Amino acid sequence: MRIAIDAMGGDHAPEEIIKGALEARQALDGDDELQLIGPPDVLEAQLRTLGAGPDIVQIVPADEVIGMDDPPVESLRRKRKSSIAVMARLAAHGETDAVLSAGNTGACVAACQLRMRTLPGVHRPGIAAVLPTLGGPVTMCDVGANVSCKPINLYQYAVMSCVYARRLLNIEQPRVAIMSIGEEEAKGNELVRRTRELLRADPELNFVGNVEGRDIFDGVCDVVICEGFVGNVILKLTEGLVDMVFRAIKQELIAGNLRLAMEFKPIITEIYKKYDYHEYGGALLLGANGTAIICHGSSKSRTIKNAILVAKKFHTLKINERIVARLAQCLVKPNGQ
Amino acid sequence: MRIAIDAMGGDHAPEEIIKGALEARQALDGDDELQLIGPPDVLEAQLRTLGAGPDIVQIVPADEVIGMDDPPVESLRRKRKSSIAVMARLAAHGETDAVLSAGNTGACVAACQLRMRTLPGVHRPGIAAVLPTLGGPVTMCDVGANVSCKPINLYQYAVMSCVYARRLLNIEQPRVAIMSIGEEEAKGNELVRRTRELLRADPELNFVGNVEGRDIFDGVCDVVICEGFVGNVILKLTEGLVDMVFRAIKQELIAGNLRLAMEFKPIITEIYKKYDYHEYGGALLLGANGTAIICHGSSKSRTIKNAILVAKKFHTLKINERIVARLAQCLVKPNGQ
Repeated sequence: MRIAIDAMGGDHAPEEIIKGALEARQALDGDDELQLIGPPDVLEAQLRTLGAGPDIVQIVPADEVIGMDDPPVESLRRKRKSSIAVMARLAAHGETDAVLSAGNTGACVAACQLRMRTLPGVHRPGIAAVLPTLGGPVTMCDVGANVSCKPINLYQYAVMSCVYARRLLNIEQPRVAIMSIGEEEAKGNELVRRTRELLRADPELNFVGNVEGRDIFDGVCDVVICEGFVGNVILKLTEGLVDMVFRAIKQELIAGNLRLAMEFKPIITEIYKKYDYHEYGGALLLGANGTAIICHGSSKSRTIKNAILVAKKFHTLKINERIVARLAQCLVKPNGQ
Repeated sequence: MRIAIDAMGGDHAPEEIIKGALEARQALDGDDELQLIGPPDVLEAQLRTLGAGPDIVQIVPADEVIGMDDPPVESLRRKRKSSIAVMARLAAHGETDAVLSAGNTGACVAACQLRMRTLPGVHRPGIAAVLPTLGGPVTMCDVGANVSCKPINLYQYAVMSCVYARRLLNIEQPRVAIMSIGEEEAKGNELVRRTRELLRADPELNFVGNVEGRDIFDGVCDVVICEGFVGNVILKLTEGLVDMVFRAIKQELIAGNLRLAMEFKPIITEIYKKYDYHEYGGALLLGANGTAIICHGSSKSRTIKNAILVAKKFHTLKINERIVARLAQCLVKPNGQ
């Protein structure tokens, strides 16, 4: 298969992106093809620095770059030769089988939605991120593609995330929960209450009810659905908070006991390794008509490598075909909402 | 002043509540009066067990209890003799100066809203919780009273939280941020965009723009405003996540190095102490026409004691009077929205 990579996206582009691509290259099959998108001179120079031959990856020219903080839609319109725009066009024209970027998330989502369109039956795509927890991986959708959701969107995120969790994370009957602010039926907002009716009406879903913020990490569910605004807040809060806790420990250790601090370091490293979301290599844009992976802006080579392997797996396991088949059987339809 | 305490609310009621009241009693002035609400026989027995004389607190009879998971509004209607209902009535009839409960949050908020009404000029009350962070305490409002906010609600939460942070936390010019999903102006949802206009229009507010989940703990702002749904998710996620990180460390330590685990224990205790939200003793229902404090359901005596002292400070510093005066000067009015 062919995988197109935005070599200019992310805080550590292009070096770490290209490094990650080269690392993935070793794990892929001989007939898999990696397409690096960016200014050819920059990419060629970087490949040379990393000691890679020119034939190991294909270079797809794109002379412009959308900055991490540029306004998404406006930038896409203005920079038609940007790596993100070129990447989405490759997918739209059938010139690649999967796309991947650690660049401006908003621009990425917009480009994929606009160019790749949605799978048959899908109302709006959603970003599915996998959170590592003590109870195992939890798939959360949406974490930022769809800021204001309708009940049908959340319902479809549940259906798609279940296919994803079953096939990619090997969870046979994923337990689906909806993010709310109380476990009782009556609690939550209008969106939660209306979505719950749809979830409950689908006998194929293993719907376990409301889940609160504190429960996500407790192993009570495998899939959590929420509006993009809430999901994105959760994702970023999780990052910031874990970071703060470890910094607090560090401060305390350094102030009090330097030997203990040294002894404690490998423990922290071990925990970071076990609960590292980089392991899951980026988030899938579920519902896009193709395979699209959005990586964290801070991605280093390992994340990019893992994301490329996830793209391969997602494509090989025909997850999109399974999503389409599953949605076709659903009694809940977009037009019904 | 008189402080009414729902002695039957919370996971550890009545024992820890009454203990907390007795601890606070020692720190209060001689003419302050504590009113414990609950079934007299239960409270008297508990007071005896704790070795307290019958004259140290006043007992206000309430024979029913609203359970932690009971449906709030329905329970209030059904249980007119519940400790929460009696508590709110005391406030409404001017028979107390402050109320406090660790019971069913929804029922508490509903009872206070219904009975105490709002301060002049306030559209809807919001719960303000103080989060301890590396950058100092951050006041977040609303964390669950108002699930679906209008821009005017969020704007008033900003104004009220600033008065609170200035007077109670001694932050001279509190930096106000709105919770969003990107730092750019264009990002966020409709509510965020419209609220930002109101915040910017008020020259008295030190408005610093959007804040993302990861930034809250980084000392970039002193006040964060958000819709009750989002704030409640954040509050509970914070709890669950911190708990998960410490459990992960414990698991790792116990599996690898028991001596290190023992040495590490006091460090954890120290951190817990420093960043313990119990220190702030519950959350204020800002905008209620009176002093109303909502404590966490898991509150133990120390939280209750601190909450009682916060109630005293809030009342003594005349924070509500200052809020009313401040709102009267605002050009942004409820009717304008």
